[in-house]
Amino acid sequence: MKKTLAEIAALINGTIIGSAELNITGITNIEDAGPGDITFAVPPHIEKAAKCTAAAVVIPDTVEEFPKPAIRVNNPRVAFTTLLALFTPKPDIKPGVNETAVLGTNVKLGANVAVMAHVVIDDNAVIGDNAILYPHTYIGRDVTIGSDTLIYPNVTIRENCQIGSRVIIQSGAVIGSDGFGFITVNGSHQKVPQVGNVIIEDDVEIGANSCLDRATTGSTVVKRGTKIDNFVHLGHNVVVGENCFLVAQTGIAGSAKIGNNVTFAGQSGSAGHLTIGDNCVFAARTAPINDVPANSFYAGFPARPHNEWLRSEAAIGRLPELIKKVRELERRLNKIEK
Amino acid sequence: MKKTLAEIAALINGTIIGSAELNITGITNIEDAGPGDITFAVPPHIEKAAKCTAAAVVIPDTVEEFPKPAIRVNNPRVAFTTLLALFTPKPDIKPGVNETAVLGTNVKLGANVAVMAHVVIDDNAVIGDNAILYPHTYIGRDVTIGSDTLIYPNVTIRENCQIGSRVIIQSGAVIGSDGFGFITVNGSHQKVPQVGNVIIEDDVEIGANSCLDRATTGSTVVKRGTKIDNFVHLGHNVVVGENCFLVAQTGIAGSAKIGNNVTFAGQSGSAGHLTIGDNCVFAARTAPINDVPANSFYAGFPARPHNEWLRSEAAIGRLPELIKKVRELERRLNKIEK
Amino acid sequence: MKKTLAEIAALINGTIIGSAELNITGITNIEDAGPGDITFAVPPHIEKAAKCTAAAVVIPDTVEEFPKPAIRVNNPRVAFTTLLALFTPKPDIKPGVNETAVLGTNVKLGANVAVMAHVVIDDNAVIGDNAILYPHTYIGRDVTIGSDTLIYPNVTIRENCQIGSRVIIQSGAVIGSDGFGFITVNGSHQKVPQVGNVIIEDDVEIGANSCLDRATTGSTVVKRGTKIDNFVHLGHNVVVGENCFLVAQTGIAGSAKIGNNVTFAGQSGSAGHLTIGDNCVFAARTAPINDVPANSFYAGFPARPHNEWLRSEAAIGRLPELIKKVRELERRLNKIEK
Repeated sequence: MKKTLAEIAALINGTIIGSAELNITGITNIEDAGPGDITFAVPPHIEKAAKCTAAAVVIPDTVEEFPKPAIRVNNPRVAFTTLLALFTPKPDIKPGVNETAVLGTNVKLGANVAVMAHVVIDDNAVIGDNAILYPHTYIGRDVTIGSDTLIYPNVTIRENCQIGSRVIIQSGAVIGSDGFGFITVNGSHQKVPQVGNVIIEDDVEIGANSCLDRATTGSTVVKRGTKIDNFVHLGHNVVVGENCFLVAQTGIAGSAKIGNNVTFAGQSGSAGHLTIGDNCVFAARTAPINDVPANSFYAGFPARPHNEWLRSEAAIGRLPELIKKVRELERRLNKIEK
Repeated sequence: MKKTLAEIAALINGTIIGSAELNITGITNIEDAGPGDITFAVPPHIEKAAKCTAAAVVIPDTVEEFPKPAIRVNNPRVAFTTLLALFTPKPDIKPGVNETAVLGTNVKLGANVAVMAHVVIDDNAVIGDNAILYPHTYIGRDVTIGSDTLIYPNVTIRENCQIGSRVIIQSGAVIGSDGFGFITVNGSHQKVPQVGNVIIEDDVEIGANSCLDRATTGSTVVKRGTKIDNFVHLGHNVVVGENCFLVAQTGIAGSAKIGNNVTFAGQSGSAGHLTIGDNCVFAARTAPINDVPANSFYAGFPARPHNEWLRSEAAIGRLPELIKKVRELERRLNKIEK
Repeated sequence: MKKTLAEIAALINGTIIGSAELNITGITNIEDAGPGDITFAVPPHIEKAAKCTAAAVVIPDTVEEFPKPAIRVNNPRVAFTTLLALFTPKPDIKPGVNETAVLGTNVKLGANVAVMAHVVIDDNAVIGDNAILYPHTYIGRDVTIGSDTLIYPNVTIRENCQIGSRVIIQSGAVIGSDGFGFITVNGSHQKVPQVGNVIIEDDVEIGANSCLDRATTGSTVVKRGTKIDNFVHLGHNVVVGENCFLVAQTGIAGSAKIGNNVTFAGQSGSAGHLTIGDNCVFAARTAPINDVPANSFYAGFPARPHNEWLRSEAAIGRLPELIKKVRELERRLNKIEK
């Protein structure tokens, strides 16, 4: 893919700063953008973008001067979305069912589905139009998969789970493994049957080797637009709202309910059986153990408001000095008392 | 599965409170139980059960009044175990070896074994009666698997490992990967051959995508009845006792020896080469770095008695206030000294 | 494998202490060595080795007396490397392509390659001499794999990745999954195409179920001789230097640059977009959030010099006592002021 700045400007209805003949070969965020890439910036990132190594930047038309090639548009975010679609390389994948794939009875395949080598699809599964199943994926009985969904190699989707449209599941992910439910009788742990399922709504992405446990009864749910990174664990009956980010190595214990637009940064977690309000952000390695109200920014373990955590961390840093100071005060007091 | 309260009461030798004709369609714990489910309660959970949304509750016969349908029995835990078996849906799986499975030489299959599509079983492996191997599982050379063991898709069991009876291994788990052993010679890390194995005793469950490394020499062992959640890491030569719980994302470093009935809550861990006594409980995110005596309840990192950890955490919360107080004392002292 | 002490001494040009006829059947480190094993020791570990349960120890020829069978050599580390190679059991694997493997067009296989059952190799992949691909591995389009590389079952290597020679990849690992890159437009997260790859240099080992994300553009890189344990996450565009250790459950966020000979102990991590100097050591559960200079030994979160962390931890332990002391000083001051 190669486009001139002029071609791109025409596509997103913008005006050019710099050479219209400049060639653009890729698209990415400011930090990763290299010499062939176009990126975008809105305040307060305009200055950072001005110094970045990208070939060109899509900026708001309220910015009149810019020190490098740019396209000024009304809404840079919307323009960028258009360009992302343009530059995304479509995998060159031919529809059809590989002769080594094994399909159970009553499997329904939509139009243009690609079922690659050694895929196994069990009885009664329904696969939507244009879905792509890479090698060694397992689709259990009565699973439904929406259209345009992409499943990479070595994924397991267990019986009865429901996967939406335009979902992406990275390699090694497990959808619908048994929840961790036991009842202890005389010191022996008896398994509680896990007869629920997992529902993944449209436009969700699941990272490599992540595990989403099926519900004990009912459903574990990931709502539309949520993006889950690698090694994320969702316990049974967890509900994750829309448009959340769950970054790598995060674990959400059973029956936690997470609102919309919530971010769990890397290596964070949550206790089970609690409720997290909309728009919360949990810093890396944070884990709430109680309900958290909407719009909170929390850090630490147990999680607390980020400002409080910062104050505590600063105070801990001054602790050795404080101990010395108290010792000194005691000496002075001893002297006075004498 | 649908049973009336009367049918269930007959089965567990109990007496009914409420309508004998009430239909029960499922069984689970108090917190997850919904309107069709039966659950159970013993003190101190009777009150909680009285308010739960379950259809009915199995309670001790010492409880004489209860505000919702119930079955009174001598031992609710034992009764509940009976009901769990009754309500557990048996997977409808036909025995036999799928034609796409690949078996090495001298593989021994017990009676009624199900070997599904694309399973690979290497030379000399022995599979017990009624075992179920889902698609894409790999069973290495000289592996033995007990009877009634259930292995979900995409599991790897490497050479020489021994798996007991009634074991359940969730998808993506790896049993017998090489331990992380190297000797550094002139700055270069030389691999120490990992020639031991993994032994998993009867009635163990291993969670999705968990990894149990084989021993350098000898065996990594998980003893009978222990339940391991998703993403758990056992280093080489770890020994886990009977009836333990290792909750999600826990990591046990090499050569740690863990007693019986020990619980590691989520995202916890343990240093290597130490000994954990029986009946210890480690709170979420806790990690011991030294031996821990039996019956300990620990928290924090490095792990310490839970009470101590609570005191420290409370003290940290009061630290900013303490710093102010010391500053004030200093001012007052300055004044006096003048 | 069985060798007498005399045979071994001849091989490494050493002199024997104890019986020349002693049989040695294995080799490992001091801590894991059992009665049939040979191990090695250099100062300050000589005393520990004298008490260990190994059959014999390779020691420096500067040590003149030793209480158990030993071989004295000029350089024990070099001698030990020779013995490791001798005692490492070679897997008995026959070259050839199993009839159930599926190869795309234009795949190039080197000499003596073993492609086992149900392996899938996509178009244009190149596999080096003597490589071993266990069952259910997936090799994507245009992947190159060096000679003598060993890939265990259920591994995924996505398109365009480059794997060096003598690399070992444990089961379930995913190489080249998409990086976690999104741009949020009106609250909706749009995927940033991840069009880079992963480069794994020679002599690297990757642990079971680890995930190395492909770069957004360019490459995620693991340099020669680095050893990665289970459950390690490398974000997009991470660069890990030579001869590093990344121990189990460590996560390195996107675009972090890690020097040579760096150790991340278990359950540690790193923020993204930072630089870690050569020879740094991060204790278990440590995570830097800023650049770290070479030769640092850090602990805690946020990571700080290990000594500082020890001081803070000790101070926290004394905090409840400090609070009491300040209260006492205040009382005494009140008294004086009256």
